[in-house]
Amino acid sequence: MKVAVVGATGAVGREMTRTLQERRFPVDEFVPLASARSAGAIVRFADEDVAVRELSLDALRGVDVALVSAGASVSRSFIPDAAAAGVTCIDNSSAFRMDPDVPLAIPEVNPESLEGAPRIVAVANCTTITAVLAVAPLHRAAGLTSLVLSSYQSVSGAGHRGVSELLEQVEKLRGDEESLAHPVHEALPTGPVFGSTIAYNVVPKVGEFEPDGFTGEEAKMAAEPRKILSLPDLPVVATSIRVPVIAGHGVSILAEFSRPISVEAAREAIVAAPGVELRDDPANDVYPTPLDAAGLDVALVGRIRRAPGRDDALALFACADNLRKGAALNAVQIAEYLFASR
Amino acid sequence: MKVAVVGATGAVGREMTRTLQERRFPVDEFVPLASARSAGAIVRFADEDVAVRELSLDALRGVDVALVSAGASVSRSFIPDAAAAGVTCIDNSSAFRMDPDVPLAIPEVNPESLEGAPRIVAVANCTTITAVLAVAPLHRAAGLTSLVLSSYQSVSGAGHRGVSELLEQVEKLRGDEESLAHPVHEALPTGPVFGSTIAYNVVPKVGEFEPDGFTGEEAKMAAEPRKILSLPDLPVVATSIRVPVIAGHGVSILAEFSRPISVEAAREAIVAAPGVELRDDPANDVYPTPLDAAGLDVALVGRIRRAPGRDDALALFACADNLRKGAALNAVQIAEYLFASR
Repeated sequence: MKVAVVGATGAVGREMTRTLQERRFPVDEFVPLASARSAGAIVRFADEDVAVRELSLDALRGVDVALVSAGASVSRSFIPDAAAAGVTCIDNSSAFRMDPDVPLAIPEVNPESLEGAPRIVAVANCTTITAVLAVAPLHRAAGLTSLVLSSYQSVSGAGHRGVSELLEQVEKLRGDEESLAHPVHEALPTGPVFGSTIAYNVVPKVGEFEPDGFTGEEAKMAAEPRKILSLPDLPVVATSIRVPVIAGHGVSILAEFSRPISVEAAREAIVAAPGVELRDDPANDVYPTPLDAAGLDVALVGRIRRAPGRDDALALFACADNLRKGAALNAVQIAEYLFASR
Repeated sequence: MKVAVVGATGAVGREMTRTLQERRFPVDEFVPLASARSAGAIVRFADEDVAVRELSLDALRGVDVALVSAGASVSRSFIPDAAAAGVTCIDNSSAFRMDPDVPLAIPEVNPESLEGAPRIVAVANCTTITAVLAVAPLHRAAGLTSLVLSSYQSVSGAGHRGVSELLEQVEKLRGDEESLAHPVHEALPTGPVFGSTIAYNVVPKVGEFEPDGFTGEEAKMAAEPRKILSLPDLPVVATSIRVPVIAGHGVSILAEFSRPISVEAAREAIVAAPGVELRDDPANDVYPTPLDAAGLDVALVGRIRRAPGRDDALALFACADNLRKGAALNAVQIAEYLFASR
């Protein structure tokens, strides 16, 4: 198979390239593509150096499947034509996620959406994937009726630039960290990616503000679970917060159900479900953290407890590697599903 | 007045000492006290070096007011006797907070609890103070009926040791931070305060786990708002998460009300209330962060938006300096209130 990675020099693109190799996806020819600015960069694949080429329809000729992570506007600009030309496009951007003709797929949760050999498939938002992987097994057990989500999102969700901005600020503050307990506001380092200081701080803005006061990220965290879980009226209140973590997103979840569900039943549902792993043993200090999830193929779920006084609502905490299970791995799993089933 | 600070060498005790001076509390004699281990340490007060003495009832003789931040077991061991001997004890620990005979006071929220010259007054938990300062004005406007809280708590909430543990881990990881995006679990630095790595991570455990799966901190965040707001049946679901921030706690809040409330009305209520400051102008990227709250005497409130499809529920984000407004300042304000009203 001829496989392209579009956005091959980005944080997710590199993870896609790595994941294709790790999972021995049957790649006969590997085509790394990116913007003109990154053309000529070298990507390592199957022990060979491969030069990145500029993205164009011509460069995609003969490609069977393209894994795309180059931002929504790039995706919008070429995916419809590429798909019409026969390239199966698996897109990590938000461009097509809410398009009713495009499946929004987490293979462990809604594989049925991938029936019919779709030419465009959207990968859900990384925070959405973390939350939905945790909640889907509980939904099947007890019927989800509402979600309240507060996220703890790592800087790699903003790409290499996000990681660099955090580390530069940490370096600038080195030796003066304790002064942050007192007002030092004029001296605080800031950068273009996060606006506010992200080192030793949290920033309650991920994406741009929309007219209703929610950010674009929060809107995705509300809309996407509805589509993935086929619950078009599910009430979701999402708050997205950036935290000074390199990799791994966390989500604090309050889930309400139409039927009672015990902590034990919830744990059993998680244990039995694909794509998630239970890390929930308070007596032995076992709980999920973003760092523990980094590099894993599954979301970690723990801190499951009943909302006080209720038998139909659970609080829990879930973590997943935002570049891997939250993006690259999910895309490769979709490719595996599509091409194994053809 | 003869004023003692008990736990004078701790993070909150030092902040209490600083705050007494900043606010020109009428101190004639300053008595810093601590455990035997810290006795002899020097604390600066009113341009003089004062030696810390070991806590005892004898050392408290003649003291008018003691600001106490030395942990719940120390508080339990001496406060009842000290209060009986005539010392007004303002206690930052959890020891007496839920005692029905002890006021749990945030002076801007429930000053009426301080009537009658109580000899013991409890200062609420730092995360509780942050959340309640933000929610109390909205409760007065629209009648609070439930709270969902997810916290972003700084390491200074665990004292000097918490700050040191974070900074030591940051230093150990220096130069290798990007490797955290891949599994490096055996190499991760850990410490006694947070258990899991706190550098470039978040830890969903603050306090010890209780039988119902909530932590002690989460139990406080549920019980204390009920008492402060005189809403004994208020449903609260709290999730406490430690984040790698030096100072300043954040709380993501979903508040439901018995009456409709608009974003504009909520903003007006915050602007009109004492102890809080509105930082909420999405068009100009104005929102609260913990670092912005560090060193301030108020909680910052922003990101106010209506839960989608509802007119009686608001999401918001609040931040406050956990050592200052969340502890030391609140204690000094209680002392001011008690002694100004005598």
